[in-house]
Amino acid sequence: MARKKMAEGITFPKGFSAGGVFSGVKKNGKPDLALILCESECVAAGVFTTNQIKAPAVRISQRRVRGSGVRAVIVNSGNANACNGEQGERDALQISEKLSGILGCDPRKILMASTGVIGRPLNMKAILSSLPNLVAGTDPFGNEACAQAIMTTDTRSKSAQAEATINGHTVRVGGIAKGVGMIHPQMATLLVFLTTDACVEKAALRSALGQASDRTFNALTVDGDTSTNDTALILASGQAGNGRISRNSSDFEAFCALVQSVCESLRDQLVRDGEGVTKIIRIQVSGARSRGDARKVAQSISRSLLVKTAFFGEDVNWGRIMVAIGNSGVRVFEERIDIFMGPVALVHKGVGLGPLQEEKALEVMKGKEITLRVMLGLGSMEAEYWTTDLSLDYVRINAGYKGRT
Amino acid sequence: MARKKMAEGITFPKGFSAGGVFSGVKKNGKPDLALILCESECVAAGVFTTNQIKAPAVRISQRRVRGSGVRAVIVNSGNANACNGEQGERDALQISEKLSGILGCDPRKILMASTGVIGRPLNMKAILSSLPNLVAGTDPFGNEACAQAIMTTDTRSKSAQAEATINGHTVRVGGIAKGVGMIHPQMATLLVFLTTDACVEKAALRSALGQASDRTFNALTVDGDTSTNDTALILASGQAGNGRISRNSSDFEAFCALVQSVCESLRDQLVRDGEGVTKIIRIQVSGARSRGDARKVAQSISRSLLVKTAFFGEDVNWGRIMVAIGNSGVRVFEERIDIFMGPVALVHKGVGLGPLQEEKALEVMKGKEITLRVMLGLGSMEAEYWTTDLSLDYVRINAGYKGRT
Repeated sequence: MARKKMAEGITFPKGFSAGGVFSGVKKNGKPDLALILCESECVAAGVFTTNQIKAPAVRISQRRVRGSGVRAVIVNSGNANACNGEQGERDALQISEKLSGILGCDPRKILMASTGVIGRPLNMKAILSSLPNLVAGTDPFGNEACAQAIMTTDTRSKSAQAEATINGHTVRVGGIAKGVGMIHPQMATLLVFLTTDACVEKAALRSALGQASDRTFNALTVDGDTSTNDTALILASGQAGNGRISRNSSDFEAFCALVQSVCESLRDQLVRDGEGVTKIIRIQVSGARSRGDARKVAQSISRSLLVKTAFFGEDVNWGRIMVAIGNSGVRVFEERIDIFMGPVALVHKGVGLGPLQEEKALEVMKGKEITLRVMLGLGSMEAEYWTTDLSLDYVRINAGYKGRT
Repeated sequence: MARKKMAEGITFPKGFSAGGVFSGVKKNGKPDLALILCESECVAAGVFTTNQIKAPAVRISQRRVRGSGVRAVIVNSGNANACNGEQGERDALQISEKLSGILGCDPRKILMASTGVIGRPLNMKAILSSLPNLVAGTDPFGNEACAQAIMTTDTRSKSAQAEATINGHTVRVGGIAKGVGMIHPQMATLLVFLTTDACVEKAALRSALGQASDRTFNALTVDGDTSTNDTALILASGQAGNGRISRNSSDFEAFCALVQSVCESLRDQLVRDGEGVTKIIRIQVSGARSRGDARKVAQSISRSLLVKTAFFGEDVNWGRIMVAIGNSGVRVFEERIDIFMGPVALVHKGVGLGPLQEEKALEVMKGKEITLRVMLGLGSMEAEYWTTDLSLDYVRINAGYKGRT
């Protein structure tokens, strides 16, 4: 049965069309060139990799997102066009120039992203010759084609949408994402593209994206541990007819919540599609002196190879969790720490609660999605992180990545 | 053929005897209690875990090593006696009290270490009842028994010795170590015990151990990423007859070099016995503005899961190395970075040198021991780190660790 065409994901809000084609960059013949088009000029905001080595697409988008009136986002997958020297810069610029010619707009109104292997020249002939078809093929039902064309090792496309009544008007937010390999410390490229028909000021849009990223994608990928190409963009068409949202508007919170709900859905889809993932672990740290402390402890646990392999092996080895807490750089007191695996108390005041509790915790660990709670007993601040187990398949996949694109 | 008994390792220097027995802590019946005995009172120094959660043995040794006249080091393996609350503290103290009774010395002259599973009470009955036999069994040929009794998942014992003529006298240094699982970020306990017959001041001994650790064990395990039990101790009997070495003596450098040579040998043995290791990678970073910068870059590369899995898969994926460099937190410039795999130039001024060089680099990667060189082009400082690949066996071993002790 053919899939019913509908405006969903990034084409769910008014004013957007999208599409994706196979240009010839990927060796496996799968779609590798994606386009998001705006009917009218959009307000835009972005969050980018903190890696000091950035792909040209990132540097170009960082520059251009500061301007006004974005018309399109073009994305190629299969090649990150990173570490290609000046050639890489020229190639990226040439793609946006050619596209701007077809669209009849200033190239500075085009944002870009790339994902894939690093250090290989782009197949420019393939990309440039595919642009007319790419533009011609975009339509309001093109979300799925677009979401597929940004994938690398993702096993399924990821998109989400949500709507809310804001100030009497229906406001919509949609998004697509690709990720995978989102296992610390160095992850695959994370790309997130969001659209909205809200009428919203640039500063408010930037805040909303920043807040939502901080609580979702950055709680997976951690500042400072990002690829050369990580990019999250949001475009606002303003066609919803609501009054313009500023950071001081009474509507601002509602708009932020809407953006965050789409990001949460994308985050969940990203985690579930992690490379070689058999378990998802939600790490809740509470009782910290500051949110920063809580984040550091959660991050230290989420990065520990020994914790991650213990989850894979369903081994109730809470000692490894204690080690990770002690290594977080946050001042802690062993004798105040409590640990729960799901609802099961495992450690109280720094001491294990014995084999019976460990047996109960083992039952929790057999699940696919596990909540690990750590109470530091030092304050009232908390943070949540998401991580995955470290499986045999993770190593298998990542030991042979390049050969598989 | 029976192994020839000889004074080697920690009993190589004059004034030491050693031994090891099975007490009943380990379930597999292997030796689990080790003792190093000094004929006379020794000058001692130590380097300990930076983890905030420390086993009682670590806290006790940290306190006692500041005092004078160390007579013995007792080590149990199979149980870390960490995260056992006040009971753990009492148990550790009781062991040293019972031992001091047998030896007829002040308990404060006994140093301690433990390694193994966290959060299980010590089998005190087994340990206490084994102490008389343990003491009775120590002798100047007991290095191997002692080295074996400190092992956990190590597949072979590790010991080394070296001697030099210092100021006309033969000075000896010996050592044993256990480690394994020394894969960042959180590693298994690292224990190192060194002995020397040098006559040396406490401050000089501490400096020599600090320097040597910094260049060997800490270039594996990284400050801040240490287990609850990591301990390195050095005891000096002063029986070599040399003039007392201070930090200002002309002999100090020679003594440091001697200590470092033993540490290097132990480091090499530790790396080669890493859990599930198929390759050892020596990461040399040069051209940094400071030694700290060079270390941070080397550390970032050595921790990257994607770099480590690429080595396991023999995949010349230098993009992952660039990503790790860019994530190190050190300010770098892509266009100044050169990368060599062994003697093969792979990246020049931030750009890959093409498939032919990658083919040559692949041949280098097929080796067991690989030197990766990164030149930052920013200064003249350098640092060296050691890491290993991340193999399927690493995950297999660590997913089921607790069941195997």
